[in-house]
Amino acid sequence: MRISELSRRSGAPVTTLKYYLREGLVHEGERRSGNQTDYDESHVQRVRLVRALLETGGLSIAAAKRVLATLDSHDRSMADTFEAAQHAMTDARPHHEASVAARTRVTALADAQGWRTTPDNPGFDLAARVLDDFAAIGYEPSDAYLDAYAAAADRIARADLAALTDRDTPALTAELMVVGTVVGDALIAGLRRLAHQEATAELFPVPGASHATQRKDLS
Amino acid sequence: MRISELSRRSGAPVTTLKYYLREGLVHEGERRSGNQTDYDESHVQRVRLVRALLETGGLSIAAAKRVLATLDSHDRSMADTFEAAQHAMTDARPHHEASVAARTRVTALADAQGWRTTPDNPGFDLAARVLDDFAAIGYEPSDAYLDAYAAAADRIARADLAALTDRDTPALTAELMVVGTVVGDALIAGLRRLAHQEATAELFPVPGASHATQRKDLS
Repeated sequence: MRISELSRRSGAPVTTLKYYLREGLVHEGERRSGNQTDYDESHVQRVRLVRALLETGGLSIAAAKRVLATLDSHDRSMADTFEAAQHAMTDARPHHEASVAARTRVTALADAQGWRTTPDNPGFDLAARVLDDFAAIGYEPSDAYLDAYAAAADRIARADLAALTDRDTPALTAELMVVGTVVGDALIAGLRRLAHQEATAELFPVPGASHATQRKDLS
Repeated sequence: MRISELSRRSGAPVTTLKYYLREGLVHEGERRSGNQTDYDESHVQRVRLVRALLETGGLSIAAAKRVLATLDSHDRSMADTFEAAQHAMTDARPHHEASVAARTRVTALADAQGWRTTPDNPGFDLAARVLDDFAAIGYEPSDAYLDAYAAAADRIARADLAALTDRDTPALTAELMVVGTVVGDALIAGLRRLAHQEATAELFPVPGASHATQRKDLS
């Protein structure tokens, strides 16, 4: 197919496709006579994958390249693919180091869940920095708060892994692992916002107003 | 205190502080004689808050400004503050619109949880785009998968709201609401990475290797 058809099929504008090709995020098509280049089904899938990583996952171009390189190398174990995807996703954020106290508390939380982890798992620093951010505004989360988060994380991680067993080939499994690692953060973030609206209505009801009318439009 | 002391107390380099001041993310200090400017405890707290939003939350400067403006206006209800924080956090990502089919499925999921929501909640589009991203790689999540995510979201949203009741004043409650909305995404993302390592070891054990030795170093 031509690039216009690839654009239609993938939903990405032609200028975006040319950018992906120039950056090496998508493999080149086959050169035909004259100026023409031919793309196939593999390009449609790759463009959709790249958009998922960049737009839904919010990854930088550099981080997306690292994730795609992981996917394109076929000599890795599943555990290694997961680890590489996690690092690429997490290292994209600029950050200060978490405090020792915060890391210690996250480690205790992970141990209490019975999780077998390695100290270089980027989740330690990501979660520990949140505890430092809370401390900076004078808030110390209770054990009940952190236990609720850990139990929720355990539940969705098991659902993530169960989903992988539905895929027919190792390549498809690895693809879902990478995409799921990235977009799963957005899925739980989106659902959390919906659940917040319910929980807020329960905790801070506006007296005399029904739910449908108590909202003010912020536009 | 001088800016050097503000830097030490907040952990932010002086050049970063000057940038925050220039961008209006932090309020000006009090001018003393000569070139000297005096900062106080309110500046330490504000700088820590800004760092939490930018670094842990990954917000852009523009999005952080919107969140801070919400915090600085005291005439809003708690529900409005939450809504403004959610919009500021979610609108920061570039995105394509979710498909109608995906939005319909997320709406059904929210309804099944009994959540009272409004259609403009940004969580709908955020979660629905994930379903579109999955569809793009030929994966359709099962009901069990989505139910696990929704149940997890419900659990952490209740923990988030319960935490708010621990704060002594409405201003402190609003501050935790805003910070918690932003950094809570990072907390569940971090713990999910830790839980993934456990779930991966369970689902894809490497025969003959103990957990401690089956990892390859990716550095």
